[in-house]
Parts: sequence; C-alpha cells; structure tokens
Amino acid sequence: MTDTARDDTAPDARARREQDLTDAVAASFAGATSPRFAHVMQQLVRHLHAFVRDVRPTDAEWHTAIDFLTRTGQLCDDRRQEFVLLSDVLGLSMLTVAVNAVPDPRVTESTVFGPFFVDGSPPVELGGDVARGAVGQPCWVDGTVRGLDGEPVAGARMEVWEADADGFYDVQLGEAIRNRGHLFTGSDGEFRFWSVRPAAYPIPTDGPVGELLRAAGRREMRPAHIHFMVTAPGYRRLTTHVFADGDPWLDDDAVFGVTRQLVVDVVDHGPDDPPPPGGPQGSAWSSVHYDFVLARDVPGKETAR
Amino acid sequence: MTDTARDDTAPDARARREQDLTDAVAASFAGATSPRFAHVMQQLVRHLHAFVRDVRPTDAEWHTAIDFLTRTGQLCDDRRQEFVLLSDVLGLSMLTVAVNAVPDPRVTESTVFGPFFVDGSPPVELGGDVARGAVGQPCWVDGTVRGLDGEPVAGARMEVWEADADGFYDVQLGEAIRNRGHLFTGSDGEFRFWSVRPAAYPIPTDGPVGELLRAAGRREMRPAHIHFMVTAPGYRRLTTHVFADGDPWLDDDAVFGVTRQLVVDVVDHGPDDPPPPGGPQGSAWSSVHYDFVLARDVPGKETAR
Repeated sequence: MTDTARDDTAPDARARREQDLTDAVAASFAGATSPRFAHVMQQLVRHLHAFVRDVRPTDAEWHTAIDFLTRTGQLCDDRRQEFVLLSDVLGLSMLTVAVNAVPDPRVTESTVFGPFFVDGSPPVELGGDVARGAVGQPCWVDGTVRGLDGEPVAGARMEVWEADADGFYDVQLGEAIRNRGHLFTGSDGEFRFWSVRPAAYPIPTDGPVGELLRAAGRREMRPAHIHFMVTAPGYRRLTTHVFADGDPWLDDDAVFGVTRQLVVDVVDHGPDDPPPPGGPQGSAWSSVHYDFVLARDVPGKETAR
Repeated sequence: MTDTARDDTAPDARARREQDLTDAVAASFAGATSPRFAHVMQQLVRHLHAFVRDVRPTDAEWHTAIDFLTRTGQLCDDRRQEFVLLSDVLGLSMLTVAVNAVPDPRVTESTVFGPFFVDGSPPVELGGDVARGAVGQPCWVDGTVRGLDGEPVAGARMEVWEADADGFYDVQLGEAIRNRGHLFTGSDGEFRFWSVRPAAYPIPTDGPVGELLRAAGRREMRPAHIHFMVTAPGYRRLTTHVFADGDPWLDDDAVFGVTRQLVVDVVDHGPDDPPPPGGPQGSAWSSVHYDFVLARDVPGKETAR
C-alpha cells in the first residue's frame, strides 16, 4: 500500500511516490529462482517506468497502447508474426543482433531474423531449385561456408528464404512453399542453388506496424536480400541476409538490418550466357556469390533459437 | 546502412555501433506529423534500447520475449484482456494513474482500470441490485459524489463492477451479466445499490501473466475491492476502487493498486439487523459507505478513455 502522504502539490512528493512505485515493482521480481530472470525483469521495470515517467501518458494514450499491443498479438499466427515486425521496425531486433555480435571482423555478420521464417522447409539438393515456381528471374546462388581458420564446414545446414520478384514471401500468398528450403554444404563447404533475383519489397503495412509507420511518416521498404540461417556442430549459428548492391533502399531499410559487409553484387547475365545446370535456356538469369565465415561455438554460450 | 568499421574487439567501437543504431531508429520517428507521437516514440526507442543494451539478451531470450508477447495478445478477446493484466503486474498501469493524479489531496484517488471492465453494462435504479444473482453475501453500497467545493454532482454516471465471493468476475464464468451495472446519482449526488461483499481473489494465472508471476515467485492475489468509474460533465473522469479494510492482501496487491485513501470499513450486519429496502430477510448482510470527490475537468486536458 502506498503510504506516502498525498500532497501532490509538492513536485517532490509526486516524484517520490512514483519512485516508490517503481522500487516496489522492481523488488517484486527479486525473489525469482533464476537470477538472470530477476535481473532482466528488474531492468525492464526500471526502463519502462522511466519511459512512463518521462512521457507521462494520458489515460487515453495508455488505452491506445494496450489496444495496439493487443491487435499486434491477435494478428499473429503460423504465417504472420507482427511482433517480430514490431521489434524489427523499432530497431530492437537489430540491436539484439548487435549486442550478440562476434567480436571478430572476419566472421560473417548477423542481421535480423525477420517475420517470415517458417519451420519445416523442404530439402533441396546441392544445385537444386529453391524457387519452386516463385515469380522472378532465375538467380544462381553459390559460395562456401568456412570457419575462421579457413577450414571448410561440410554438412552445414543452410536455411534459405526469400521474397519473390513481386516482393512477397510464400506465406503471404497462400499454401504453396516457394523460395524456401534447406540444403547441406558439400565436402568442401560449398553450396549452390537456384533461386530468383532478390527484389526490394515493402514490409506488411496492413496491420498495427503499418499504422505505426504511417503515423511516423516512415517508409516501409526493405532493400533486396536473401535470408540465410547456417548451423553446423561446433559453430555458432549464423542468421543473416545477403543484400543486393545498388538497391536504392540500402540506406533506408525499414528494419535497420543492412551492414556493408553483407552487400554483394548481383550479376545479371544475358540469355546468350550459358547458365549453370538447371538454369533457364535462352533467357536472362542472375548470379550471386557469397562466402560465409562462421565463428566457433563457445561452449556453455547458449545459441539455440 | 551501418558504416561503422566493424572491429568489435574494441569495446568503444561496439558501444558506438549500438548508439548509432539507437540514434538512427530514434531519428526515424522525427518526421511524425504529431509532435507528441514523435516524442513518445523517440523516448520509447531510447528507453527500450537502453534496456536491451543493459541486459544484452541472447537470441533465445529475444525469441522467448516475442513468443510471450504474441501469446499475450492471442489470449485477448472481448472477455479477456491479458495485456492490461501484464501492464498491471508490471506496475505500468498504476504508474500511469500516478503521473495523471490530480494534485489535490481532497480529490478521490484513481487506481488501475483492470482487465475486467466491459462496455454496455446494464442500467440499475438507485437502490437497485447490481449483483443480479452473483454468489456472495448481500452488501449495501452507498455514498455521494461531490465536487471540490462540496457541491453535489447530480446525474453522474457510475459504472460498478466487482468479483463475486468466489473471486470471479462474470466474464470469467459465462455469458450472464453479474456484479456489473451503471447507475446515475440523484439530485443530492447520492448513490445506493445492492451488490455482494467484496472478496480477495487471484488474478487469472492460466496465461502468460501467470507464467511471469510464477517465474518471479510472486503472489497473484488482489485485496477485496469494488470497481467504480464515475463520469459527469465538467468533471474529470474517476476510475478507482474502494478496498475493504482488514484484507490480508492490502499490502501485497499483485497490481500495486492500493492507496490508503481508498480503504474503507466493510460493516457486517447480523440477520436481526434490518437491511435497507431490497435487502435479504433474516440473513446476514454487509454495508460500505464511500463519498467520492471529483476534480473539475480541465478544458483541453484530454480525459476520454
């Protein structure tokens, strides 16, 4: 019970009452069995309370926030993840990536996970087709997965997912799985597959996150990219994108996910340039090459998704 | 695009990279049409980013948080408001009440809105029955609604809602409306109605908020109370409770909602004590008296729910 005498005419009394409340809430988490949980929650309480004390929301603003968060959750299902999108546009996803960055500039950088990963993607052979009929110009993607000493990482599992030329992921279009699959690197750490030329696209704006961006006057575009998640025993999981150089949105990514190291050339080839096996006959195609470098896993350091 | 050279071996470079990201995200809200929205979002970004930089969540912790928020939203419908409950147990609801408190100790204090208000409650005559068959000992509730100069506020709309003796609100039990209604004060600002003796109860713990409380080793009880929301033209909306003195949870309210001014005696009457009209014949009953004092509405100060 708040015992503080309630003469709020004194600003000091008001500030003390607010601080007492913050302290009481923080203290309520002190008894958690997990010291980590206690620490995280106490810090969350202190930072969120500081926010409320700084902006001093009206009652109506509080209701607006509750309604916004409620609708954000209600929009989520196994094909739509609006809370990931919210975390993304607030830069919280990229900041979490940044605080976990491996302190070695040789390691391939991580970036945001994004809202469009789906568990259970189909297997694809080396050199096979991830696109599965997705709209777009065929794009050959190849490269290697290596460790910090240059050693090839054979049998690394590589999840790939990508929007089509119209800017849509398969889960936004229907039941068919497209531009999504997983493969395993070969004995020299090599990988190769057909996909489609990556395209810039708007993040979904038909939900609460779209309302937020419009109210902020912010743009909703993401520069063209392909998603990768690479896992291999003994190595740290890598969740990243490869971005297409020259994309006009590279410096204005709606989710703050671009770092220079991840930007590569997408090479366009005319119909007369013979493609690798499985490529289109007599029509244009593109190619992307990227060599991934994984950090060693640190024993005891939790990296599971 | 993050241009900062990425030699994160240097802690300074890492801190600079994180700060650059925070600044970029905050700047993205600078163009909002509403200066208030821009300010709130920039402060939200700065405080949430400071939280992330302080606790440095793992990837798995970030996924846990996304999952928690998603399930919190998904549990919400027109009878369950888990995000309000989350705001309540984090003390954010009570802090929002506190920052909006009227700086006059004579005015009746506000407290949390709670997750159990429902629009469209049934009308009840002065002296009528709000309980509508709710489990519990009949309780006569009366008092007045006045302004700061002692003037009676006639025709004030008073919304009342309350848990039953088993600790459940009607919306937790089924379709029937119980312990919920609205009435209007009489010409002298008076109100009176039958309800049931307020009982302490646990907040719902079968959802994400329950998981949070269990992980924190926190108790889930709320001391016995009756909810009131009083509105009248020219006066500031009052959303509050009246708490029953002597309740063992007054100093350990799960949502930090108790202030001493709102605690009153619940008087118990034997079966031989004749009740007010409409009361039980030959059985025990209780009574509560409370006089509410409303602040004048400040023109231009937004108070709508």
